[in-house]
Order: sequence, then structure tokens, then C-alpha cells
Amino acid sequence: MKLAALLTSAGINIGVCALLLSLYSILRKQPGNASVYFGRRLAEERCRRLNSFILERLVPSPRWMVTAWRYKEEEILDVAGLDAVVFIRIIVFSMRIFSIAAVVCIFGVLPLNYFGQDMEHGNISSESLEVFTIGNVQSHSKWLWVHCLALYIISFSACILLYFQYKSIARLRLLHITRSPPNPSHFTVLIRAIPKSTGETFSDSVKNFFIKYHASSYLSHQIIYRAGKFHKIMNNAGKAYKKVTRLKGAIIDQKCIPFRYRCGICGGTSNSFQLCHDKFELGDKRSDLNGSNSSSKEKECGAAFVFFRTRYAAVVTSEILQSSNPMYWVTDLAPEPHDVYWSNLWIPYRQLWFRKIAILIASIVFMILFLIPVTFVQGLTHLDQLQKIFPFLDGLLKKKFASEIISGYLPSVILQLFLYIVPPVMLLFSSVEGSISHSARKKSACWKVLYFNVWNVFFVNVFSGSVISQINAISSPKDIPTQLAKAVPSQATFFITYVLTSGWASLSSEVMQLFGLIWNFIKRHILRWKDDPASVPTFPYHTEIPRVLLFGLLGFTCSILAPLILPFLLVYFFLGYVVYRNQILNVYCSKYESGGQMWPIAHNATIFSLVLAQIIAIGVFGIKESPTSSSFTIPLVILTLLFNEYCRQRFYPIFHKFSAQDLMEMDSEDERSGRLDEILKQLSSAYCQFPADTTELCNRGENSVVTSQVDGESSSKDVVKNGALHSTLGVLPVSRLKEALASLSLLVTIVNSQT
Amino acid sequence: MKLAALLTSAGINIGVCALLLSLYSILRKQPGNASVYFGRRLAEERCRRLNSFILERLVPSPRWMVTAWRYKEEEILDVAGLDAVVFIRIIVFSMRIFSIAAVVCIFGVLPLNYFGQDMEHGNISSESLEVFTIGNVQSHSKWLWVHCLALYIISFSACILLYFQYKSIARLRLLHITRSPPNPSHFTVLIRAIPKSTGETFSDSVKNFFIKYHASSYLSHQIIYRAGKFHKIMNNAGKAYKKVTRLKGAIIDQKCIPFRYRCGICGGTSNSFQLCHDKFELGDKRSDLNGSNSSSKEKECGAAFVFFRTRYAAVVTSEILQSSNPMYWVTDLAPEPHDVYWSNLWIPYRQLWFRKIAILIASIVFMILFLIPVTFVQGLTHLDQLQKIFPFLDGLLKKKFASEIISGYLPSVILQLFLYIVPPVMLLFSSVEGSISHSARKKSACWKVLYFNVWNVFFVNVFSGSVISQINAISSPKDIPTQLAKAVPSQATFFITYVLTSGWASLSSEVMQLFGLIWNFIKRHILRWKDDPASVPTFPYHTEIPRVLLFGLLGFTCSILAPLILPFLLVYFFLGYVVYRNQILNVYCSKYESGGQMWPIAHNATIFSLVLAQIIAIGVFGIKESPTSSSFTIPLVILTLLFNEYCRQRFYPIFHKFSAQDLMEMDSEDERSGRLDEILKQLSSAYCQFPADTTELCNRGENSVVTSQVDGESSSKDVVKNGALHSTLGVLPVSRLKEALASLSLLVTIVNSQT
Repeated sequence: MKLAALLTSAGINIGVCALLLSLYSILRKQPGNASVYFGRRLAEERCRRLNSFILERLVPSPRWMVTAWRYKEEEILDVAGLDAVVFIRIIVFSMRIFSIAAVVCIFGVLPLNYFGQDMEHGNISSESLEVFTIGNVQSHSKWLWVHCLALYIISFSACILLYFQYKSIARLRLLHITRSPPNPSHFTVLIRAIPKSTGETFSDSVKNFFIKYHASSYLSHQIIYRAGKFHKIMNNAGKAYKKVTRLKGAIIDQKCIPFRYRCGICGGTSNSFQLCHDKFELGDKRSDLNGSNSSSKEKECGAAFVFFRTRYAAVVTSEILQSSNPMYWVTDLAPEPHDVYWSNLWIPYRQLWFRKIAILIASIVFMILFLIPVTFVQGLTHLDQLQKIFPFLDGLLKKKFASEIISGYLPSVILQLFLYIVPPVMLLFSSVEGSISHSARKKSACWKVLYFNVWNVFFVNVFSGSVISQINAISSPKDIPTQLAKAVPSQATFFITYVLTSGWASLSSEVMQLFGLIWNFIKRHILRWKDDPASVPTFPYHTEIPRVLLFGLLGFTCSILAPLILPFLLVYFFLGYVVYRNQILNVYCSKYESGGQMWPIAHNATIFSLVLAQIIAIGVFGIKESPTSSSFTIPLVILTLLFNEYCRQRFYPIFHKFSAQDLMEMDSEDERSGRLDEILKQLSSAYCQFPADTTELCNRGENSVVTSQVDGESSSKDVVKNGALHSTLGVLPVSRLKEALASLSLLVTIVNSQT
Repeated sequence: MKLAALLTSAGINIGVCALLLSLYSILRKQPGNASVYFGRRLAEERCRRLNSFILERLVPSPRWMVTAWRYKEEEILDVAGLDAVVFIRIIVFSMRIFSIAAVVCIFGVLPLNYFGQDMEHGNISSESLEVFTIGNVQSHSKWLWVHCLALYIISFSACILLYFQYKSIARLRLLHITRSPPNPSHFTVLIRAIPKSTGETFSDSVKNFFIKYHASSYLSHQIIYRAGKFHKIMNNAGKAYKKVTRLKGAIIDQKCIPFRYRCGICGGTSNSFQLCHDKFELGDKRSDLNGSNSSSKEKECGAAFVFFRTRYAAVVTSEILQSSNPMYWVTDLAPEPHDVYWSNLWIPYRQLWFRKIAILIASIVFMILFLIPVTFVQGLTHLDQLQKIFPFLDGLLKKKFASEIISGYLPSVILQLFLYIVPPVMLLFSSVEGSISHSARKKSACWKVLYFNVWNVFFVNVFSGSVISQINAISSPKDIPTQLAKAVPSQATFFITYVLTSGWASLSSEVMQLFGLIWNFIKRHILRWKDDPASVPTFPYHTEIPRVLLFGLLGFTCSILAPLILPFLLVYFFLGYVVYRNQILNVYCSKYESGGQMWPIAHNATIFSLVLAQIIAIGVFGIKESPTSSSFTIPLVILTLLFNEYCRQRFYPIFHKFSAQDLMEMDSEDERSGRLDEILKQLSSAYCQFPADTTELCNRGENSVVTSQVDGESSSKDVVKNGALHSTLGVLPVSRLKEALASLSLLVTIVNSQT
């Protein structure tokens, strides 16, 4: 590939990006798209819609960029939580390190590469890109120490920046834990694998066990039910009702209703505990209603949330082995109420290890099968081979412009399209694996997508060279540095175009929300649904973090080999900084929170990238027969690994454990201020598995036991009377169904009268 | 190598073994050797020496074997602890599985190998050993399914046996924890990395921290002192004294004194807590005596034993992250008092991770450097190569008998001699690594020696083939099965001789205790020292477990390839069963105990051996072009790994954690029975860092603060008065030194008078 082709590609991309961003700045001003571009704001703040038409709405402006840039970190922390801040920090880290790398490599390494061989340089734009890589430096060159020095500077800067980021994020995480409002998850432990005992329900077992062994700290518990077919039917009815009321709302009620941001499943508000009474009592009542104990026993599954009087007691219970059989009474600290992934809680604990192994194997198979599209993409950068396979393309490929487009643009686009299916698949894998919380599921998917990206985008592209089937390359570990050293510089061209297309395009498509826009259009104008503020998406960390880290990997590995990648990468990170801040502030809501647990992923990935870059450098110096540089780089690898080990010792435990000191101080603080009783009172109602049923049974609780028929009607009357209440708390699916039918008939009447 | 050579080798070995065992049965009857052969019994039971000479003492008899065989497991458990039982179980498991394997392979596989090719079989004794291996089976043979079936039978039997052993040992471990007499280590937590604070001693910091955060369960603590130069001088003086009194005792006092078995360092009895007063108070007193606080602060190191009121509280504190800085207040459950490795406790916690990495690298380097002797040994089995290198050996090597000896016997002997230095080196490495207990140190050394054995005895021998420098073989993972499949059958000969020589000889030398015998002779007849019952060695698990597991590995990998190894191996295990039982019951004492933690090592090593055997089988079936057998073996690998994962989930946590249920039941049981107060009272005196100083300060404690000069004299007077007491509890080094000088002058007088 020639520099001209690269510039063509860059030009196309800059044009596309500028177009899309301008289009975005117009589209975001249209009130109809508010739900796409301001989902979080609509959901969290009072809605303010400007329906008046003004000219400004059609003029593109970069103001949103300035606004996004100006926001302070504290504001993002308030608005979107720690995970968002950590994500922004990953980008900030990348911006800083690649700014340093760009200065060092563009001014230090690039000229050396360009004038590395005694050759006449013609027109710079027709120069092959290879001329700018380390491949152009002569063997035995006495200037290779500059590359080595550049690598040292980059590695040391990266380690220093990483250290301070880790330190600061660890501090933020500690503050997040200690300063946040009382969190029910801190008092709650998820117990799984409750042993079956004859003549005792699971609920009794839990009660007896904790009263016997944790009498002083045990408060209450809530058995988790296995959602059966009945529940599914109810659920579907509820969904049908929801859709119908939305249709109705779209026509009758044009004002926007005050909205309290709902938690993912139970419809409670996110910042306060929602009252839905003790599930434990509910279980008893339900079994009373059913008349037979056996059916309730069938539905109960061997898992429960157990509530404790203090945070410390909960953490202790979650971390200590409870029973002498490690397959019983397995404890984990509970996720936050809206973070609970209910449908995984009933999975028998004995299945989990097996599921994990199965998913591991499935992921590996998926990664290998994915080689097929990558092979195809790889072929496109080698046009001569493509011509051989498809002779009919001969004419097309001989046209200069077409061939430049094909070799410079198409491969990345195709790869990108295939890559779109990866995150959903990995998220599915993580669900099947048995994660107990949404955030853990996303974190696990994030790891999977990261491995996938590194393998399928980086290694497969590097090692395949021309013939993809040569996975043999990696089957001899000793030769890996040499193989990498040969392959990476020659593949640098592909990586540069990858940054241009995949990187920049992903940012534009992220900001445009094309899918959201189309869906919004269909929803509003064809289906005529009302906006459902609860459907605001959460930030796709499992897609975006691996992507940013992959670009980091490309940056580190290519920086001294092909420094030309760095300007494009810097543009990506700076644009990404603005775009992601904008998206976090306006589009995505943060329903749940992992509390900064994404940072260790980023840290480890960066260390991996650094070490890989160093190993490749050793290989390259070896090929260029510069043993001094090669041997000077080895201590760098060791130092980097030692640094990583130190960070693992110093910071990592903060990210997966709570410290006794902090928890006890929080407990005693709450006790001193007298808040503890209130917290404990709200605790037992924090986790609702069946929010709708719950409301019904809460109502029932007051009327004591009545027949289901009568009760269903009475509650539906309540609902009709008290519309505002039911819209936030939700109602019983059966009554919902009835209401839905009533609304439907009303709707038909109204529609008929209007048309 | 021919069968005749093997039989020669076997004959020599059987002869040597029989000779040594007979010699042992005579030597053990000599009263002079009692301290070598009955060390444990002498130390634990009242000594009974038969000085009368009877003829029976010169007649070899196999009665000791019968006695050792007949002992029940309960008796071993009582006498030598759980670790010994686990070790015996490892051998029992090997006996069982290799009995099954021998039956299957000798009757099923061996005939197939022998008649595998259409060839005329001559005299069986001149048949090459290759004829008995799978190498003799034709390619495309339709009989390879028998090998595959044999592998299935062996693998399934091994898994079933492993499962039941794991289950039963887990049960024994739980009983060991719950049924054993109150153990101070269960109430004690080792705190390291106590943060320095200005104006506060470490002792104050610990006190304040635990009173603040663990007020209800905190009892007291004991700061660990950094043993300075002063302490070293005192210690040396003490040793000098000990030697002198031993010399004196050898002459004056021929009767054996009643002995209470001492714990490793502090001289207390092993089964009860020894009284040596609260170290915390001691620290204060010492600083009072010194007059200045700063010098005591210098000596204190940031580590302490903290005592708790309940076992549960101790375990909770040990497992929970204490501070939000994970590098401070690091907690571990304390080892048992006589298991504490005091000299590692003062190591700053910040050094530990670095030490671990350094030792890891050192171990790898050591393993690689060890290739040099292995190369030499390897050469001996290929006599033709040896002849080329050393032409002067030509005449010798042409003699049939000499060449058979050299190829059949010498390599193993040389390798064995080199291998003798490995366990001490690995033990040293484990000390430097920073293990806090003797048992942890041995366990860590055990892992290291195991890796070493597997690498240097198995892999290096297998892969080297003829030219040792071909480590390249393992650098391409894909070819490993094929490489192994080619190499293992051809190296089977070496492994058979290895079992014969190293295996059988190690047992004879173990039972003979040649080194102990010689040392005993020197001690008694040249140095004229008195027996010191405290010098009874502990069982060298770090040497013996890896050895037994290595033979297991050889057995599994060779069983279907070269079944001829199995009879020799069975002899080894059956003989080992008797020998080790005898040694455990008579020779070694169990000063400390890991509580069965060796079993997971054995389990993992066995699984590794199984999987390796299966992978080799896949390779062999591949070479023999039997894709059916090859592909039928793959599920076996997966099943074995799944089985291992299940065991890890089901049993492993029992071996590295205590369960809350058990601990609480023990606590409440103690409280009910009123024993708890007594236990807690003895607790603060259980750990003595400086036993001698302690006694001094204990005496001082009663007299309140007096000057060091006066006090030293008064205690030395006490000691002279109360000789029986000081011999068990030990005395102050200063007074010891004085006594030693006094004894020395007495000794000189006596010796002069006798000669």
C-alpha cells in the first residue's frame, strides 16, 4: 500500500466522520429524536421539549463537543457512576501515553526509518508505507538504539501513568463504597446450594442455619423462586399490557408524565429502597393460598438472599467457607438490587463449574470458527491473490481508485461488520455461564470480547501473513518473537487502515446511534408507541472497553515499528474522549454499577500490550542483528512484569474485596447517626423477584387471605383509582391484562372517532 | 538393552536389597543403634535398652516387616499424625491402581506387544526389551483397541480410587481439626506489615487497631522481635553450653533421663501449651530494663501474633482484608507453636512477593543447570556414543558383563547421586521464599522437588533421545504428543532400570539410614556425645512424596506402552509400604503437621500423570495410524480433566480453609464444657520466640524490676538448684554460658582423673 492510498482512505474517513458528526449535531436538535440522543436526561430529569421550529435546528454546530469536553469528572461521577469515570480514564490514559509516544516516535523514530536505507526518495505520496516502518532500517544499523530508547521511554511513561491511574481509581472506588448512600447489597449475602433436608422447606433450613451459626447478626432472608411456566405467562401478559398502554398513551396523553427512574426489574426507584414487603412472608402466604405445601416447595430453589444487621457481618459470611462440604451453603456478596440477574439465581450450584467449562470451550470454538471471515478479509489486502481466485474481478482491480478503495477500506469494513455479532454472542455466553449480576455478566463478556479481539483482530491478522492456515506459526513458542517481528511491521498497513475505518467509523456510528434512530422512527411513526423511558440502554462496556484496549494494543505494538499509526490513533482517542463523554452524559443510563471493576481489565490488557510490544521489539532487533538493543530490551520486559506484580499486590485486592476497617467505620457511623434501624427496615423489601405479584400480595397482606378471584378484581379497582401509583410501582399481570383489554376497546373507539 | 541385561540388573538389585534389609534387621537389634532406628520411640516413650547380648541379635529376621504391615491406620494416626497417614495412603493408592494396571496390561497388552509383528521369537532372554513395548506392534494393527481399552480401565479405576481417597482424607482432615485437643494456632492470627506510626510502638498500634475494630473478640497479642546480633551471640553461647553438657552427660550420667518431647524451637512439650508468660508484657519489661524506648522499637518488627477469644473470630480476621491498603495489616492464620518458622517472621511483607518471584526464577535456573549431569547419564545408556567420546573405554565396553552393568545400572546410580542434593536446595529455596511455618516450607519444597523430578527425570530423559541439546522438541506444543509417543517407548528401558535402581535402592537406603548410622557411630565412639532425643528427624515429605509420585508418573505413562515396568513398580510400592510404615512408626517423629495438605499435591500429580499418559497414547495411536483408537482417547482426556475440576470444587477448599460451621461448634462445645477459659489462659504463653530469655524474664516478673546483673546471678542459682526443671524448660543463655564454663572446668578435671 502506498502513502497515497492511505491518504485516500484517511480522506474518505475524515469526510464520512465530519458528515456524520454534522448530521448528528442537526439530528440531536430535533425533538423527535430526543429519546435517542438524550435518553438518560429524559429518564432522569424532568423533560423539556422544544416543539417550536427554529432555523438553528438545521444548522450543524460543534457546540456539543465543547459542552462534552467541559464537563468535570465529578459531574460524570455523579451522573453516570464510577464505571463511566473509569472508562473515560482509560481513554485519558491512552491519550496521554500515545501523545508521549507520538512525540517520541514521530520526531525520533520516523526519520530514522525513512532514511534507514541508502535509497533515493521520490515523491513522498507515492512512497510505499513500508518505507516508514522499521523494515526500512538496515541490518546492523547503529541507530537502533534510538528505537530501544523510545521503547524505554514509552514503557516507563506507561507504567508511571498506569500506577497513578490505578492509585487514583482505587481511591475513587473506596470513596464510592464509603460515601455512597446505604446500599442494601452491602448487608445482603446470596446463599446458594442450600442442602435439601427432609421435612423442611429451604426457607426453614436457611432460618435454622443462620439462627444457629450467625444469631447475633442474622436479620431475615428471602428465598429465591424458580420462575415457572405460570410466571412466564403472567410476564407475557404484563408485556402485552405495557404495549397497549403505551399505544393508548401516545394518543390520549401528549404531556409527559413525571417519571422516577426505575430499577431494571422491579420498577423501584434506583436511589431509595422500594417497599414491597418481606419476600419470606410472601412465600408463606403464597403457599397458604395455593393450599398445598408441596407445590411451593417445588418452586423454591436452593438459593436465598440473607440479610444481616451489619455490613461487616455480611462480608464475613460471604467470604468464609460455611460448611465442611464446600458444595453446600455457598456464599457470595449479593449484587445491588437492580443489578441482580434473577434468571440465573435458580441455577443449581453444582451446574455452575460445568457451565463455566462448557462456555470456555464454546468461546474457544467460536473464536476459531471466526477465522473464516477473517481469512476472507485478509485476502482483500493482497489483491494479487484475490485476482487469482476470482479472475472476473481482473478489470475492476486494475482501476487504480477501485484497488485503493478495496485494499485500503473494504477489508476493515467487512471485518467490522462481522465483529458486530461478537459482543451479543459473548454476552449470551456470559449469561449461560451463570453470572449472578448484570454487571458481572458484562464484565465477563468484556473479558471474552477482549480475548476475542486480541486473538482475531491482532494475532490472526499478524500471523496469517498471506496464507491464513498457518496457525502453525504460534505452535512453536520459541520462534514467536521472530515471527511477530517479521509479521507486525508488514501488517502495520492493515492496522493503520483498521484504526482509520473501524476506529473512526465506530465513533461516528456510536454518536449517530443509527440503529436507535431507525428504531425510534419506526416506533414513533409506524408502531405509534409512546416513549418508554425505562428502555434507555446502559452503556455497552463489553463492546467499548475491548475496542479501546485493542487500539491501545495496536498503538503499543506498532509505535516504534510503524510510527505512522500514532497520529491516526491520537485522533481516535481525542475524538473518542469527546464522543464517549457526550454519550455517557446524554444517552446511556447507569442502571447498575460494578464499582470500577473494569480498571483491572484495562490495566492487565495494557501490561500485556506493553510486554508484547517489547517482545516484538526483541525479535525485530534480533532480525536487524543488533544484539545490544535486543539484550537491553530484556530487562525492560522483566521490569514491566515486576511492576504489574506489584500493582496486583498493592491495588487488586481493593477491587474484589471489602476491607474490614471501612465496613466497620460505615457501620458504626450509621449506628451513631441512628440511620441503621431505618436501613434495616427497608432492607427486607429491597430485593423483589416478582415485583407485580408482590404488589398484589402486599395489598392482600392488609385484607388477610381472600380468594384469588375477588382479590384480583379489588386490586384492579385500586389501580384504576390510583393511576399515578401503579405507573411507578407496577400492577398484577392479571389485572394488567384486564386493564389492557379495557384500554384496547377505549383505544379503538378513540381512533375511530379521530379518523 | 536385552531382557538378560534387565534381569542382570534386577538380580543385582534384588541381591543388594535383600542384603541391606537383612543387615538392617540385624543392626536394628543392636542397642547402640537404637537412636538411629528407634528415634521416635526413644523420644516419645520411656527408653528401654537391652544391653544383654543374645545370639538372636545377629540373626536376620523379617519380623519387622510383619510388624510394620500389621499396624492399623488408627495407630499410625495416633502416633505420627495425619501427614503420615496421607503419605501411606499415597502408597496404598499406588499399590491398588498398579495392581489393576498390572493385571490388565500383563495379560492383555503384553502378549499383543510381544506377538505384534510377524517375526520369529528366539530365546526369550536374549530378546530386546523393545519387543515388549508397543513399538513392536504393527501400524494399522486391529488390536490397538485393546491398548485403548486398557487405558480406559486404568483411567477410570484411578479416578474412582482417587475420588474415594480424597473423600476419606477430607473426612480425616475434618476430624483432625475438630477432634484434636485445643490448638493455640486456631485462636491465633499472624499479623504482618503493621504500619509504622509516629510516636507509637508497633505493640501500641496492634493494640489500638484490634481494640478499635475487633473489641469483642480480641484477647491479647505478642509482638515478634527481629532477632539481632545480641540474640545471635546469646544463641551461640547456648549452643556451646548444650554441647558441653552433652559431653559432660556422656561421661557422668549413663542413665537416660526422662524426656518430654520438645517442640522445635521453644522447648515446650508438644501436646500441651507451655507456660512462658505474655510476650507483650515482656516487651514492655524489656524496654523498661533497657531504659530507652528507641532501642526496643528498633528490635520490634512489624509483625505480631494476635490472640482471639474464639476460633471463628481468628479465622474471620485471617481471611478478611483488614485495611483498605492491602499492603498493611496482612493477616494469616498462625501456624502451630512448634511449626512456626521464626526466622522468617520478621521479613518485611513488602519483600515477600519479590522473594517469591526471585525464588521462582532461581528454581527454574537450577532446573535448567541440572541438565548437565543428566546429559552425562543419558550418554551412558547409549554406549556407542560414549565409545566415540571416550575411545579409551573401548576395551572395557566390549566386555559383555561390563557393558550390561554400565547400561543397566550405572546411569541411574549417577543420576541418583546428583538428585540427592536437590531436596536440600529446594528446602533452602522455600526458606528464602518466606514460608512462615516448617510445614508450609516442606510443602513448598515438595512442589519444587516434584516439578524438578518430573522435568529432569522424566521429560529431559524422554526428549533428549540421543542428543540432549534438543530441547527444541518441546518448543512446538502441537508435536508434543507425537514426540512423546516416539520417545517414551524407547526410553522405557531406562525407566525400568530407574525403578530397579533408584526405586529399590532408595527404599533400602531409607531403611538402613546409612548416614544416620555413620553419624551415630561418630557421635558415640569418637565425639562421645550423649544421645539428644530432640534431634530426632522429622519425616522428609519433601523428598519422599515427589519420589513416590514420580514412580507413579512412570507407571502411568509406561503401563500400556511398556507393561514390563509394572511388576518392578509393584515390588517398589509393596516394599515401600512396609518400609515407610516401619520408618514412620520407629524412626521419624512428627514435630509439626500440615494436616493432610500433601494429598492435593498427590492428587494433582496423579491427574497430571494420567493426562500425560493419555496424550502419549493419542500420539502413539497416531503413529500407529489407528485413528479410531486415537479419537476414542480424546474424550478420556476431557473426562479426566472434568473429574479433576469436580474434585477441586468439592474437596480442595477443605484443605486450605476452615469452615465456619465446624469452628463454631468447637467454640460452643468448649464454652459449654467450661474449657474455654483455661484454653485462653494458656494461649498467651503458647508462642515463645526466645524461650531462654523468657524463662529469665518470667523469673524476673515475680521479683519485679531488678538490675540485670543481680538478676542473672539469682536465676543461675535457681538453675543450679533446680536442674530437672531447667533441662526441660531451658535457661537463660547468660547463665548457660556461666554454667557451661563451670561444667567445662569440671569436665577437664574428670577427664584428667579418668585417663
